[in-house]
Amino acid sequence: MKRTEIASLGEFGLIDHLTKDINLVNQSSRRGVGDDAAVIDNNGKQTLVTTDLLLEGIHFDLIYVPLKHLGYKAAIVNFSDIYAMNGKPKQITVSLGISKRFSVEAIEDLYAGIRLACEIHDVDIVGGDTVSSLTGLTISITCVGVADEQEITYRNGANDTDLICVSGDLGAAYMGLQLLEREKSVYDGKGDFQPDFAGKEYILERQLKPEARKDIVQMLSENGIKPTSMIDISDGLSSDMLHICKQSNVGCRIFEDKIPIDYQTALMAETFNMNVTTAALNGGEDYELLFTVPLTMHSEIENLSGIHLIGHTTKPELGNYLVTRDGQEMELTAQGWDQLSR
Amino acid sequence: MKRTEIASLGEFGLIDHLTKDINLVNQSSRRGVGDDAAVIDNNGKQTLVTTDLLLEGIHFDLIYVPLKHLGYKAAIVNFSDIYAMNGKPKQITVSLGISKRFSVEAIEDLYAGIRLACEIHDVDIVGGDTVSSLTGLTISITCVGVADEQEITYRNGANDTDLICVSGDLGAAYMGLQLLEREKSVYDGKGDFQPDFAGKEYILERQLKPEARKDIVQMLSENGIKPTSMIDISDGLSSDMLHICKQSNVGCRIFEDKIPIDYQTALMAETFNMNVTTAALNGGEDYELLFTVPLTMHSEIENLSGIHLIGHTTKPELGNYLVTRDGQEMELTAQGWDQLSR
Repeated sequence: MKRTEIASLGEFGLIDHLTKDINLVNQSSRRGVGDDAAVIDNNGKQTLVTTDLLLEGIHFDLIYVPLKHLGYKAAIVNFSDIYAMNGKPKQITVSLGISKRFSVEAIEDLYAGIRLACEIHDVDIVGGDTVSSLTGLTISITCVGVADEQEITYRNGANDTDLICVSGDLGAAYMGLQLLEREKSVYDGKGDFQPDFAGKEYILERQLKPEARKDIVQMLSENGIKPTSMIDISDGLSSDMLHICKQSNVGCRIFEDKIPIDYQTALMAETFNMNVTTAALNGGEDYELLFTVPLTMHSEIENLSGIHLIGHTTKPELGNYLVTRDGQEMELTAQGWDQLSR
Repeated sequence: MKRTEIASLGEFGLIDHLTKDINLVNQSSRRGVGDDAAVIDNNGKQTLVTTDLLLEGIHFDLIYVPLKHLGYKAAIVNFSDIYAMNGKPKQITVSLGISKRFSVEAIEDLYAGIRLACEIHDVDIVGGDTVSSLTGLTISITCVGVADEQEITYRNGANDTDLICVSGDLGAAYMGLQLLEREKSVYDGKGDFQPDFAGKEYILERQLKPEARKDIVQMLSENGIKPTSMIDISDGLSSDMLHICKQSNVGCRIFEDKIPIDYQTALMAETFNMNVTTAALNGGEDYELLFTVPLTMHSEIENLSGIHLIGHTTKPELGNYLVTRDGQEMELTAQGWDQLSR
């Protein structure tokens, strides 16, 4: 029997392979696989559904991630997907696989983080499943949100003359992870070890306690701006921009000098002798919103605080490129966090 | 720091503990934790949401469960929860954690089973998450369904003079599991071993390829019968009946001689020297519907094929008992499949 390794396809390749010939049979199924969330119609009011599966050792390392932070993040990444559809998260289900290693108090901490995220975003925990696990901690959260039909932003709505915008700054969560990994390897079992985190609080928080950009969605709405396409940056600017380009059938130019980078991120990259642009392009876990707006909205966007104009779309045949500080064009590739291809 | 073992609470105890003081903040969150599915309102049309997490080594053993069957079952158990609310399943999201042990072809088989279940029940796959796993196969499916507000059957609607009904027959899936476990231990690595499954197809199919009782929900609807309460039997008749009793604040009497048992189930129990009633009460995984109807519907229910009248509810102070063949009363206890207390 033929055996094809999953690594040969990668995560997105495997999903494409498994779902490519799915035909939606229910009229209410407006959008299926391939966006930040599925869209289900209820007579004009849309239900959004997204889900994330987090596995110990793959997505988190409990040596340096406190359980409360982990719970918070596990909820936030789902809310972020709903915001990326220009919707509002409303309910989640929480499924946990728990090994004997974990006490009731540990799971209380995890749950406290999930509940804190829910309180901040006005989301209800409405169900789930709790089972024992042989190996470690498994967290599967599904989020249900709402949106008006005309407000939803898909990945496929960009036109070839749009502006490309991003909220906040990029690469910090990745540099925070590098810092945590370094301190973990320095620690290496020494009991009295004190990690050196002074002055690096921002990048640590971006890794351990990311936020979902509810505020950006609200601000865009208050300013009458509906993006033509939107996605949240979970895999990295490069990979997520390519999702928009592919689904909208456009090309793009992103200008390296326009990519927003925090001072701590840049400093940490220098310390580690890493290229900070690479961290922003491929690091991921920023949970910022990447979106496109019509060229005519240039001045409206420029006046919004916390939004950065980083490039523009093009006709698809012009390809997807980063324009470097010295004017070179480098093709964008989807490296991201594609664990399945490792 | 205090450490409380999760085993001291068990699955239901842990869920109660974590969720007991959750207040639902969104008006649309009509029903949260504690029923077969959550209920979310969309201006009178209700969205039902349920989710199940299946872990290798806990919920399935790939030595005797073919991947296609596993996929089928993973979808079916979710549909069953929606039917238990008197709803119709419409969409699922499928999240998979996959270790290197699995090939693309293996995951194709799994997916083929999920898709077959979806085709039979007119359900769309609309999303999910696919990640790598260090340890084995993880399957998390969330199902979204619909129901009219007045049609939904909760666990808490039984009155203290209702009839208790169950569809199909019970204990077969459990005896199928016993048979598979025996053949596995007999096999023990012998290459040319042929398991002896002749004449035992029914109990094997009940374990490996259970069905969700869409047909029963349709039949009840066509006959104008709306149960006062309903649940699907996943943990065993005893455990699931107790959920209805607790949430409806009623007691119950279930008559041992009325519990529907298939001939193969009884024969297998005899072979294994097991009590077949215990298999029906505590075995679980039957995915039959257990429901209550008003006493006045006695004749309507008796005329329906595939529905068995197995007892009646009582005032809560009368307790929850099985009336044995020789007229003794034995208290019902929730043994079920409470893996976390093992």
